[in-house]
Amino acid sequence: PAPPSAKKSTPPSPSTATDLDHQSIAVAQGLYTISPLTPGSVFFLPHGTRIFNKLLAFMRKQYSLYGYEEVISPIIYKKTLWEQSGHWENYAEDMFSVTGRGAEGEAAKAKQEGRYLEDEEYGLKPMNCPGHCLIYASDDRSYRDLPIRYADFSPLHRNEASGALQGLTRVRRFHQDDAHIFCTPAQITSEIADTLRFVHAVFTVFQLPSYELFLSTRPEKYIGELAEWEQAEGALKEALNTTGREWAVKEGDGAFYGPKIDIVLKDAAGRRHQTATIQLDFQLPHRFNLKYRDAGGEIQAPVIVHRAILGSVERTMAILMEHTAGKWPFWLSPRQATVVPATTAPEVIAYAEAVQRRLSGVTNTLTTATEPPIPILEMATRTFFVDVDASEGKTLGKRVREAQKRRVNFTLVVGQKEMENGSVAVRSRDGKQLGEKTVEEVYQMFLELEKTYQ
Amino acid sequence: PAPPSAKKSTPPSPSTATDLDHQSIAVAQGLYTISPLTPGSVFFLPHGTRIFNKLLAFMRKQYSLYGYEEVISPIIYKKTLWEQSGHWENYAEDMFSVTGRGAEGEAAKAKQEGRYLEDEEYGLKPMNCPGHCLIYASDDRSYRDLPIRYADFSPLHRNEASGALQGLTRVRRFHQDDAHIFCTPAQITSEIADTLRFVHAVFTVFQLPSYELFLSTRPEKYIGELAEWEQAEGALKEALNTTGREWAVKEGDGAFYGPKIDIVLKDAAGRRHQTATIQLDFQLPHRFNLKYRDAGGEIQAPVIVHRAILGSVERTMAILMEHTAGKWPFWLSPRQATVVPATTAPEVIAYAEAVQRRLSGVTNTLTTATEPPIPILEMATRTFFVDVDASEGKTLGKRVREAQKRRVNFTLVVGQKEMENGSVAVRSRDGKQLGEKTVEEVYQMFLELEKTYQ
Ligand SMILES: [Zn+2]
Ligand SMILES: [Zn+2]
Repeated sequence: PAPPSAKKSTPPSPSTATDLDHQSIAVAQGLYTISPLTPGSVFFLPHGTRIFNKLLAFMRKQYSLYGYEEVISPIIYKKTLWEQSGHWENYAEDMFSVTGRGAEGEAAKAKQEGRYLEDEEYGLKPMNCPGHCLIYASDDRSYRDLPIRYADFSPLHRNEASGALQGLTRVRRFHQDDAHIFCTPAQITSEIADTLRFVHAVFTVFQLPSYELFLSTRPEKYIGELAEWEQAEGALKEALNTTGREWAVKEGDGAFYGPKIDIVLKDAAGRRHQTATIQLDFQLPHRFNLKYRDAGGEIQAPVIVHRAILGSVERTMAILMEHTAGKWPFWLSPRQATVVPATTAPEVIAYAEAVQRRLSGVTNTLTTATEPPIPILEMATRTFFVDVDASEGKTLGKRVREAQKRRVNFTLVVGQKEMENGSVAVRSRDGKQLGEKTVEEVYQMFLELEKTYQ
Repeated sequence: PAPPSAKKSTPPSPSTATDLDHQSIAVAQGLYTISPLTPGSVFFLPHGTRIFNKLLAFMRKQYSLYGYEEVISPIIYKKTLWEQSGHWENYAEDMFSVTGRGAEGEAAKAKQEGRYLEDEEYGLKPMNCPGHCLIYASDDRSYRDLPIRYADFSPLHRNEASGALQGLTRVRRFHQDDAHIFCTPAQITSEIADTLRFVHAVFTVFQLPSYELFLSTRPEKYIGELAEWEQAEGALKEALNTTGREWAVKEGDGAFYGPKIDIVLKDAAGRRHQTATIQLDFQLPHRFNLKYRDAGGEIQAPVIVHRAILGSVERTMAILMEHTAGKWPFWLSPRQATVVPATTAPEVIAYAEAVQRRLSGVTNTLTTATEPPIPILEMATRTFFVDVDASEGKTLGKRVREAQKRRVNFTLVVGQKEMENGSVAVRSRDGKQLGEKTVEEVYQMFLELEKTYQ
């Protein structure tokens, strides 16, 4: 099993580690909070959850394009599973163990009665692979069914030392855009090539086009056949060549159970982050006795590819925060627009609220507040994160400046004139005046920005 | 804290408990699987995950309409929290306990070195309320901030006796469409009225319009002031009256910490299921010392409303399965259409695949397979679950019958003629011939069905 690292970013250089590190940005934007009652597990506040959910929705959307099937696998598994996977032997110190307290009582009672109950010691999962192997093994598989690509966003727990915990980059509870591809040896090249294409598409959307590719090859100590390794490494090289990018070899740096490809991206400040990993695995299929029937009717073992593109969703949020200095692109932003009434006239404030509802997507026309809202939204409705700042005792200028400080993408000022025109005065995050636009024009602009991932 | 029940359905009557109970339907449709390695935690297979995710997406969409803010709260919390919430005292037998094994080592090492480390015994959360209280308490709150409505879909664990586990209705790991409303006493009526309106809208979409409302009032043993109870019960009655429905009182049946409203729905077979619960809570705000500053600058305690509409997402799936006999409405269906080529001609099969891609939404025109697919999907793209059945050695008739057996909403037969016309021959799940339609007409039909929650 490949433990994709949740801790391999170079730390920010001292000069940037002030208000541009992700923890400061997250505090300024109210993205998450922490508690000593659960060290290393962050609480995503509403605005942080908006980003988190948008990242998942984005990956899910692409999964339909790249042929992944999402599954939801359990969080706890009995010790037996972790023994079978090898985690209990090699990884136990990093795992949380779980005990069914009621079940313990049951076990004790059963013992008294001379019955046997199996152990009730569980492990809190640090990765999804063993669970996905159980799903694969839950049915007969033919070569016609392969490749099977299971994606999973489950929460994972790793018991990192408390002294090492930090922000969103060194945590105990995290989520991955994790997936396991079960395929035949002959499918390795095309699966890896597709994965690399997927990686490129995602990094392009994030405007992180600068990344390096590394192939880690067979180490001295390895399992499996030499021929199997050579075929697999050949397949990975062929896939790497389809990218048209340069790539480097890390000789002998593969895991003992298979070669891998690491993707190291470079952010705006030149920091390198290892995010995506593509790890071949010859071992796990054997540990879980996974099979498929080939075209000739023979039983074969599939190859497993562990792959994550973002790696840790939490760490991706941190990287994007630092890369953009907290200026989220519109489509991913937790604060897409703020409507600021220019006066305290009740009708202007009511108009501001009507604008907020229309641009949020919860109404599809510019209706007054008195009309009862519709009882249900359609699934296809595009909603946006728009609020109103009508706080009393603050000048218009102060409210506009505060919106810019919160990194709101657009500030929409409305007064008597805009109310009469069904319009808003649009100002971008960097203070540029975009002029007066009708509310419908602004909604169309939002749709277009989202459509093009700006 | 209100433990919304995950186990209050009347069992199916013997006559229906055959191939129409949810476990048989789930097996026939490949929705989930289980393993003795984690009893009571189901593995949602791809088709089950589609339904699960659609239910969550549906609730999330409505949250933007009803003013809920989603949060993501941790899964494990130290014993201290559960002592504060009262769970450790009253609920411990139903909780899984968690130990940081590495941390234990750390604690032992620290002891040797004469340092003090706090306890590392955690509980796996059986409900979200204490975590939401920590989020509420993480900032100063004013009456202007209220109501605050935190929604959360976190996995929850309750250590039910292993003998009681069954399908999706009696489980150890489950998810709720959980939310907590923090409000002032004066806001109770409007919050409850809105929640009841939300309940009604959701049940209407699910075509479960038949439900009963119950108000459970102050029991003999209660905490808080009598006047507080009377005000709260009055507020609930007023909210119930806004529904225009009949409701009944369960005298003295409220929890000791607050009155509640139960919603009991009746499915197609006349079975009753308690799903939605709206529970007022005067106790938890005090246990967690929650505050807000009122208009006069005084410190007050908010009221907490625990509320879930579906209750357990897993149980909702089971109820809907039995209610519809596995015939999912199109918008919620994990198999919305199957394209069946009428011949084995390679060009017809290629056409079937092009139809599948277009109707799935991963291309926006009817393109041939040779064209390279686009690298990224737009967020607004509507995708549908469409597959192709070109299995060799099966007649057209057999493949059509099998699709109907899998409860696919539409079977789309394509032959030479349809290929030339850019069309498909449409057959509904109940075998009705809907005639020849262009692929674009079918995509528009899908959009319309989804839009109207059919
Ligand atoms: Zn893995
Ligand atoms: Zn609760």
